[in-house]
Amino acid sequence: MTGRKADDVVTAAFLVIGDEILSGRTKDKNIGFAADYLTSLGIDLKEVRIVPDEKAEIVSAVNALRARYTYVFTSGGIGPTHDDITAECIAEAFGVALNLDPRAVAIMEKHYPPGQFTPARQRMARIPEGADLIENKVSKAPGFRIGNVHVMAGVPSIMQAMMDAIAPTLATGRKMLSETVAADMPESRIADRLAAIQDAHPETLIGSYPRANEGKFTTEIVIRSRDEAILKAAARDVAQAVAELLG
Amino acid sequence: MTGRKADDVVTAAFLVIGDEILSGRTKDKNIGFAADYLTSLGIDLKEVRIVPDEKAEIVSAVNALRARYTYVFTSGGIGPTHDDITAECIAEAFGVALNLDPRAVAIMEKHYPPGQFTPARQRMARIPEGADLIENKVSKAPGFRIGNVHVMAGVPSIMQAMMDAIAPTLATGRKMLSETVAADMPESRIADRLAAIQDAHPETLIGSYPRANEGKFTTEIVIRSRDEAILKAAARDVAQAVAELLG
Repeated sequence: MTGRKADDVVTAAFLVIGDEILSGRTKDKNIGFAADYLTSLGIDLKEVRIVPDEKAEIVSAVNALRARYTYVFTSGGIGPTHDDITAECIAEAFGVALNLDPRAVAIMEKHYPPGQFTPARQRMARIPEGADLIENKVSKAPGFRIGNVHVMAGVPSIMQAMMDAIAPTLATGRKMLSETVAADMPESRIADRLAAIQDAHPETLIGSYPRANEGKFTTEIVIRSRDEAILKAAARDVAQAVAELLG
Repeated sequence: MTGRKADDVVTAAFLVIGDEILSGRTKDKNIGFAADYLTSLGIDLKEVRIVPDEKAEIVSAVNALRARYTYVFTSGGIGPTHDDITAECIAEAFGVALNLDPRAVAIMEKHYPPGQFTPARQRMARIPEGADLIENKVSKAPGFRIGNVHVMAGVPSIMQAMMDAIAPTLATGRKMLSETVAADMPESRIADRLAAIQDAHPETLIGSYPRANEGKFTTEIVIRSRDEAILKAAARDVAQAVAELLG
């Protein structure tokens, strides 16, 4: 992945694995983090999926996403309990074996007191054949990377530490820059102007985001571009439109 | 959808539409709400996707999800601005026309002061042919239902009001019940016991959810079943296993 040109677009999908998110019991905190993190690296997050702890669903989502995007990142399902089935699903998706990995065993044997590297904990040392380990500074049991798929824990503090471990290995594109213009009006008041500004600046993405606050509607307009001069010109036009409508 | 038996399983997918969620600029609040809401109704949320404001992506996700699940719920992209393209994508997914809808026009003309039902606002009255409207108590511009797809606004307060409007029309299944057992230990300590309890109670779903809190790991074990007696029996076994390990 070296040699990628600075203006290449690097894309990613994020896959959350876990019944607990779909039942509402646990509120996901990883999607928002990953979105911010990847954007800051210059990687465009293009799709997110949340699937249950079911083998067929996980395998099918991994295979669909890894074929479409530069990178896939997953969170959840790599713990020691029977409901943690991500590693075997990834092995199946890639058609490789899942065995105790000597590197992972070595890390975890060192971490636990003698006799405490139990069979349940050994589950966490099963790594698909051909995968690289992802360091886990928080609780040692590693994640892993195979092909373009990065498999991480679901606990947010561990997932974030794993992202930090992965980041230096990722190819990154030219960063998407953004400017935000606040407009103290409902978005319908500025909609026609925004459509015209979008047409005039085709190399930007102009988004309009309404906010409802105690019955009052305001709007944030976000202009995005990989080119700073193009970004500034469009943002200037938006700010002027807002000023004219308020004046 | 009437006549559905009480023990039928009703499934749903939730589709979030919007660049702002994928860029990290806006943190989604609708997924967690929908997960809780649907679970409380007795509808199993089986999949969530987040896609950008791109026609091909939206159409393809809607068609994939509506073929697989009892219901699809979408949030985002039905406002008045140029980047709101959900209605036209739904019309395309269903192969129907998208025209100004007289019912939607009537609601919105009544809502706005004379002369204020501008062309931008009229965009929000475009409804795919054959759709039913979904009432919007917050800001009037309606959502709509076509086939098994329910199209809602992205602003959380409006999305939640639309969910309330939809709820009475939905078929619901036998509710998934759950019990939670807190275990003051890392999940690896109880993993073997949980696997055995899961095997002994095949009609339950037993999930183990680790928590990291200032370097200390605890576990919540969630037992789920549609049958209360089966649920209680499994939860009792889990509680006993926790007590034995701590004692």
